[in-house]
Amino acid sequence: MPPINRLATLAIVAAPLAACTAPPAADPLPSWSDATAKTNIVTFVEQTSDPAHDAFVPAEARIAVFDNDGTLWAEQPMYFQLAFAIDRVRAMAPDHPEWASEMPFAAILSGDAAALGALTEHDIVEIVTATHSGMTVDEFQATVADWLATARHPRFDVPFTSLVYQPMLELLDYLRANGFKTFIVSGGGIDFMRVFAEEVYGIPPEQVIGSMGKLAFETRADGPVLVKEPGIDFIDDKEGKPIAIARMIGRRPIAAFGNSDGDLAMLQYTAAGPGAQLMVYIHHDDAEREWAYDRESHIGRLDQGLNEAAERGWTVVSMQNDWRKVFAFE
Amino acid sequence: MPPINRLATLAIVAAPLAACTAPPAADPLPSWSDATAKTNIVTFVEQTSDPAHDAFVPAEARIAVFDNDGTLWAEQPMYFQLAFAIDRVRAMAPDHPEWASEMPFAAILSGDAAALGALTEHDIVEIVTATHSGMTVDEFQATVADWLATARHPRFDVPFTSLVYQPMLELLDYLRANGFKTFIVSGGGIDFMRVFAEEVYGIPPEQVIGSMGKLAFETRADGPVLVKEPGIDFIDDKEGKPIAIARMIGRRPIAAFGNSDGDLAMLQYTAAGPGAQLMVYIHHDDAEREWAYDRESHIGRLDQGLNEAAERGWTVVSMQNDWRKVFAFE
Repeated sequence: MPPINRLATLAIVAAPLAACTAPPAADPLPSWSDATAKTNIVTFVEQTSDPAHDAFVPAEARIAVFDNDGTLWAEQPMYFQLAFAIDRVRAMAPDHPEWASEMPFAAILSGDAAALGALTEHDIVEIVTATHSGMTVDEFQATVADWLATARHPRFDVPFTSLVYQPMLELLDYLRANGFKTFIVSGGGIDFMRVFAEEVYGIPPEQVIGSMGKLAFETRADGPVLVKEPGIDFIDDKEGKPIAIARMIGRRPIAAFGNSDGDLAMLQYTAAGPGAQLMVYIHHDDAEREWAYDRESHIGRLDQGLNEAAERGWTVVSMQNDWRKVFAFE
Repeated sequence: MPPINRLATLAIVAAPLAACTAPPAADPLPSWSDATAKTNIVTFVEQTSDPAHDAFVPAEARIAVFDNDGTLWAEQPMYFQLAFAIDRVRAMAPDHPEWASEMPFAAILSGDAAALGALTEHDIVEIVTATHSGMTVDEFQATVADWLATARHPRFDVPFTSLVYQPMLELLDYLRANGFKTFIVSGGGIDFMRVFAEEVYGIPPEQVIGSMGKLAFETRADGPVLVKEPGIDFIDDKEGKPIAIARMIGRRPIAAFGNSDGDLAMLQYTAAGPGAQLMVYIHHDDAEREWAYDRESHIGRLDQGLNEAAERGWTVVSMQNDWRKVFAFE
């Protein structure tokens, strides 16, 4: 066998072998600036996944939880799920002539921006109830999928799912590549988020936790269905987040990522565990590429959390300084 | 290079390659008799995991759900969690002198078997409330772990976790080896089952769904804790099972395993999905090795489910005929 053939033989044998071993290490977080936040994350991941390190955590306990709105994707000028609900009011209006004169529906249908901006929490509950109940879960999710495929964000004129943060996508992949199991723990609606979380974030439905409306099991002529009913079963915000984690994960996370005071209880609960932990706040301080808001914001207020992060040495990610890129389309 | 050396080189290269490929197939279900039930299961698994087959289901949708009591482990002469609660009443009695004269506690403490046998549903709720609330989730789970390590089953005189069904352990492994994700969906308490499900069944806490009591998030001097409070939040039985599946998995299972009418809605919901499905009832018809009970039983009644299984051609597993072995210790 001439040398060239021997090499060819080895190459054929070695090709599938190479597929079994890790490729040479490239920077897994290219959209992150080489600064403290990135160093904290990489150090934590390397130590907790290294069996020889004191901080090692077995793979099954490597649980990482992420808020969604403002942490994995943007949340301005309004929560994207509210934008969906408002578009649904418009789409459903022909079947509801009474809405033309009924608030808050009339405000939406008149296209009055000032009235829209003045929606109260009670208005929002009414809008969400009208648009998120009275259909099966499958029917609801089909309307969400349609909306995500067609609606455009008012500022960036791209689909809403294009407003996921590129550095956070890299972080999710990096954590999973190191044996972490990634979960969403968000105030957003669970049935809403599950429509896109698997495709956009690589997070399967069973790892998406959110707020939940009432559900009923009904047996219809064409079989059993689950119907979304009016009324809230669970709000996955503030103290609700650790409660939902205990209920739906059953294990304390070792890493938690949020951007608002609504995530503080989840970060505190994570911080109180044994062993190594990583608590991270995303700080919206980039008005140019995204938005700048924190202590005074109506949406995603970060006030107490910013104080506690400073006191306890948690990682605060400056969008402006820590992220080379915010959105993939930049 | 002489031929022998060339072969040695190839062997060295090929050794790690072999580790990447599946070992030759042995019978993955040795405790199952070669009869219809086993054939149905194996055919279903082979077809749904074969990309070339019409019935192929992508791995992420290969969701299998299992009832626990009577399906994965025994449930006689009483639910094992009730045996735990009764033992806890005895252990806690020194701190509750009033129980000596208060029903249903007095019945337990007197050791009166007739009174124990006559416990009503209301009594059981009282016993469970007294023993399953007023402590943190971590504290509760520590008492469960202690109990599982020391308590013995009255008939078999083995730890309760030895009363898991060997054929079902093989089935769980077989499904997972073929890309299925296995979940428990049980009327049992979620915090109770999570103590042993990972070690005994290989099912991690986040894939264990059960009934849930109320939880509170409290910040104590030594940090935040989750406290089990009196009161039931959710009963994971009958229609509750498909609702819990929608909430906690967010995907319709393609395989469902139960043993009682409490599992019927879960099997119906699974059967109504698109594509291939497998619905299986475990039929307790082996009084010698386990117990024989169905239509008239107080625990794990299987009546309507047996009718529907026959009408719809679901798989009914006869413990007596389909299982070569029931428990590993036999």
